[in-house]
Formats: sequence, C-alpha cells, structure tokens
Amino acid sequence: MFVNETVKEIVNKYRALWSLGHAMSLMGWDAETYMPEEGVKGRSVASAELALLYRRLFLQDVAPLVEKVMGAEGLNEYEAGVARVLGRELERLRKVPEKVHYELAKLRVEASKVWRDAKAQGNFKAFEPYLERVFQLRREFAEHLGYKEHPYDALLDYYEEGLTDKDVEFMFRSLVPAIKRVLEKVSEDGYYPRAHELEGVAYEKEELERLNREVLTILGFPWSRGRLDVSPHPFTVGVSLWDVRITTRYEGRDFRRSLFAAIHEFGHAIYDMNVDEALAMTPLEGGASLGVHESQSRFWENVVGRSFSFVTVLRPLIEKHLSIARGYSEEELYRYFNVVRPSTI
Amino acid sequence: MFVNETVKEIVNKYRALWSLGHAMSLMGWDAETYMPEEGVKGRSVASAELALLYRRLFLQDVAPLVEKVMGAEGLNEYEAGVARVLGRELERLRKVPEKVHYELAKLRVEASKVWRDAKAQGNFKAFEPYLERVFQLRREFAEHLGYKEHPYDALLDYYEEGLTDKDVEFMFRSLVPAIKRVLEKVSEDGYYPRAHELEGVAYEKEELERLNREVLTILGFPWSRGRLDVSPHPFTVGVSLWDVRITTRYEGRDFRRSLFAAIHEFGHAIYDMNVDEALAMTPLEGGASLGVHESQSRFWENVVGRSFSFVTVLRPLIEKHLSIARGYSEEELYRYFNVVRPSTI
Repeated sequence: MFVNETVKEIVNKYRALWSLGHAMSLMGWDAETYMPEEGVKGRSVASAELALLYRRLFLQDVAPLVEKVMGAEGLNEYEAGVARVLGRELERLRKVPEKVHYELAKLRVEASKVWRDAKAQGNFKAFEPYLERVFQLRREFAEHLGYKEHPYDALLDYYEEGLTDKDVEFMFRSLVPAIKRVLEKVSEDGYYPRAHELEGVAYEKEELERLNREVLTILGFPWSRGRLDVSPHPFTVGVSLWDVRITTRYEGRDFRRSLFAAIHEFGHAIYDMNVDEALAMTPLEGGASLGVHESQSRFWENVVGRSFSFVTVLRPLIEKHLSIARGYSEEELYRYFNVVRPSTI
Repeated sequence: MFVNETVKEIVNKYRALWSLGHAMSLMGWDAETYMPEEGVKGRSVASAELALLYRRLFLQDVAPLVEKVMGAEGLNEYEAGVARVLGRELERLRKVPEKVHYELAKLRVEASKVWRDAKAQGNFKAFEPYLERVFQLRREFAEHLGYKEHPYDALLDYYEEGLTDKDVEFMFRSLVPAIKRVLEKVSEDGYYPRAHELEGVAYEKEELERLNREVLTILGFPWSRGRLDVSPHPFTVGVSLWDVRITTRYEGRDFRRSLFAAIHEFGHAIYDMNVDEALAMTPLEGGASLGVHESQSRFWENVVGRSFSFVTVLRPLIEKHLSIARGYSEEELYRYFNVVRPSTI
C-alpha cells in the first residue's frame, strides 16, 4: 500500500495527529451525550488547546514531508491520496491564524452547550449571541482561506471538495420545480393524510429505544464496534475504525423521526466502519466527502427505510415493542410511513 | 497566586499538557464504561501516542522553565508547589526511555480489556500473560527510576511521595496484631453473624442504582459536575475540576458492596471537586497524594457510611427502593450493616 519512503514516514508521524483526532472525537461525542453540565468549562479549554497542538504538530513534523511528496512523481494511488489529503489540510492550516483556530475550537464547545439548553427551553435569544459569534468567526475563517466568488465556497470546500455556492444554487434550481410538481400530484391524490394521528401520540422512550436497537441489529449494526446513544441532534462519530458511535433523539411523539434518524446515522456508521482496515489511523481513514457520506445515510434512511418492503419488516417489531402503535391496522401504519403497497401503484 | 514570571509561563504552557491529561482521563473512563469491545484496537494506540506526545511536550516546552525555577529563591508556596510537582515529574520522565513509556501505555489499555473479559468468565489464565508483561515492564520502570532498597519503592513513590516498602511493612507489623485482637473479640461476642442472609439475596440492578443515586444526592454529590456509571472495578476520575466521574459495580448480590463502593468513590470525588478553582488546569489541580485521597474516601465509606446514625438514614431509602430488603426488621438491617445501636455498646 505505502511503499514510498517519505509517505511511510508521513504515515508513521501522522499516528500522533490521528491520536489527537481520536481524543477530540471522543471529547466531542462525550460533550453531546454524557458530560455533566459544568464540564464544559474544562472541555472547551482542552478542545482549543488540542486543536492548537494538532496544528503545531502538523506544521512542525508532517508539513515538511508533505511538501516533499506533493509534487512527487510515481506515487501509487494510496500515496497520492495521502499527499492530496494532507496537502489540502496543510494549505488551510497555514492560511488561518492560530488565534482564530483557538477561539473557534473553544467557542464551538461553549456554544453547543448553550444551544442544548436554549433548545430545551425553546429560548433562541439565549443562543443568538453565540450563533452570531460563530458566524463572525466562520466569516473570518473564509477570508483567511480565500475564495473566488462566495465566502461560503471556502467553507463548503471542507465538506465537498471543489463544490461552490453557485453549483448548489444550480442544482436546487433544477430540482425544486420538478420536486414541487411531484409533491402537488401526491397531495392531490389524497392517499397520504396531511398529518397522521400517530404523529401526535406520545411514546415510551424505553420502548422506542428497544425498537431502534432491534432494527439496527437487523440491519447488521456491529455492536462490538459501535454504540447508540441519545443527543439533542443525531450524529455519527468515528472515534476509530473499530469504534463508530451513532445517536438518535427521543422527542416524545412521532416515533418515525427517532427511528429514521437512527437508520440515517446507521448509514454513516456502516460507511465509516467498512473502510479498508489497512487505512486505519492513516490520513485516508475517513470517508471521501460529505456527499458520499450522505449518499450512504440517505440510501439506508430513504431507499431502504422508507420502502414498502422494509415497513413490512418493521411492522411485527413495532407490534412487539411499541404499545402505542398496537391498535393500528396494517394500512394505517403504511400511511403513517408514507409507503404504498406495490400492487396499488 | 502565581507572581513569578517563569512560573506564570510554566502555568500557561502547562495548559496543553493538562489538556492531553484531560483527554487521556476521558479515554480511560470511556474504556472502562462505554467503549465498544473492539474499540480497544484504536484506543490502545491513541493512548500510547498521547503518552509520548505528553512526554515530548513536557521535555521540550516545560522542562527548561522548570529547571529555571527548581532552585529559585523567594517563590511563594504555590510557585514552590509548581516547581516541586513538575520537578519530580521531569526527573521521572527523563529516567524512563520513550519506548518503555509507549509500550506500557499501550499494554495498559489492552490488558484492562483482557482483564474485564477474563473476570467476567472467571478465567485467570487468559489474563495471566498480560499481567506478567505488566509486571515485567513495571520492574523495568523501577530499574530506570532507581531505588535504594526495594524496587517497589520507585513505584510507590508515584502514589505516596517518599513512602517505602519498609515503612509499609513497619505500619502493618504494628497494626495487624492489634486488629487481630479486635477481630477475635468481636467474633467471640457473637453479635454479628458470620454471613448475613442478605449477602446471598439477588437484587434488581435498577432498584439498587436508584438507591445509590439517592444516597449520593443526600451526601451532596453535585450532579452538574459529576456522573455515576458502572464498571467492573469502581473508580473515580477527575476529567477536570468541573467534571469528576465515579463508578460502582453491580454484582447481583450483597447490595452493601455496591452502595459502599459508590460512597467510597464519592469521597474521592468530593475531594477532587473541592480543590481551589484558581488551581484548575494547573499542575496543582490534583489531590496531594493517594494517602490523603484514601483518607477522604474511607472517611465517607467507613466513618460516615458504616455508622449507626447513617444506617438509620439509609433504612427508609432501602425500604423505598430495594424490594428484596423490605421484609427485614430494623435489627436485621443493623446486623447486615455491622452497626450497633449506641445504647447497646
């Protein structure tokens, strides 16, 4: 896989950076799931310090080697991948001053805590100044990184290399009219109720959690390499190739939401977990891009999860675990899940 | 508090080391509580890498400054504390080679996982080779650190500065005969049953957990700054001054054990939590020594927890939460807890 001596040296040195990333991922997961409230005081400082340390180690130990291979010829596709991924990171790290990195890393932890509390209380005002500061800092970030047309292009590039605001505009401009037409047609048909009764029925969190776990097990989630926890907004974090954690939320009503969030995150997780083990702890460990990631999560959530066939698999499990859904007929459940029996199409 | 310019610089630079410590503490907590099984593969590498990084940063950034203040005059007691604590650490870091640090940090994570599995299966053989290797490495450690009489003196010094094998021998030699006499007298009295029936009765884990939580709340455990979780061996970890986590275990029978473990760890936690906030994230944040730590944990466990008065507080809570203990008379519960009504002494 890695034959080039410089690349091998990079991969060796990168293990310390990967380890910092591992720690920061775990700290992020913990902050959203189990950290006691006041823990944010230490966590925010530690997160910012480790972000700086990462930056410093990268520039000091890895950067000179990366520069050596960036223009190099005869690299195999893995080696070229390392050069490309780290080359991009290096360029970015150099453009944004240390101070901005530090403040943003600290603010993210603090703001996330304020957001959680504000969300629970439905109090946007409490979060507003933090959101403003995050925006401000992100704008600064964009200015440092540089862009051709729109400041967000500089930031979007982190998620989807090369994608611009203009591309996204173009995509939605072509998609929206067609989607609107489909939506109108479906609404006119009158098959799906505007709001289904089950959306308003309160469920037992413990029952739904058991349902989610059984569904994940059926989908093949490897519990020895992952976890399902609870957070205000569902997410997936790959702490390592052998430890990928997902969350869902329990809003109390409309159980589809929690279930499909779990299936969505399952899609992210299964992608992260299936990276070649030989790439573990190297710069090539993560997914290719957010777009590819979402293609996986939405495939499982929408193509698999919201299909008639899958809902027929779900039905007996819902019957088994969810007392509130027990009185509903087969047809009613199909309507709630917005699926149509194939023969009726 | 810190006035001396060099000490102030040390404290500033130390924040990166503290942050690594923060991450490593959380990783340690997570490995014992929530980490999925196979996560050990990445966690062991990350732990070893961060241990090396800590060492490297210490020697590179902090060591020259520490050397400057180690002999300095006119330091106030906080500044002298920083010089003393970091001076000791520096001396140790220099004596033990990087390779040994790395291997031990990695092995500790791996061995702990093997130990957990072996414990659950009652299979010592599975753990034996790991234990042997830990011993071997610890002996190497001791040789590098140096000692006057017994190799363990070098290691004991980590927990209780200056204490030696000989001191411990001497203490136990004086204590054991007296304790034996007390034990014989108590056994002859026949008040306490050799084994109490309640030791063998299986409890509901969820019920006991609720009891433990209510007891900790009554003792004043600040839940906004701490957690109670489950691990095969109870422990306390101070992730920061504002985030101290304790664990207990649920063995299924003899509920005192779980309850007193929680109270014991509460003692450790409350000590960690009450360090002056001005010392947070500095080298003086931790407790003074393991001896002082145990004086706190055992005070709460034994002097408070195992007192007649406290058991009278416990009784209604046990009645409320623990269905298996409901049939027992007041006197029976006192016997189970080995306490005597003051009037009868």
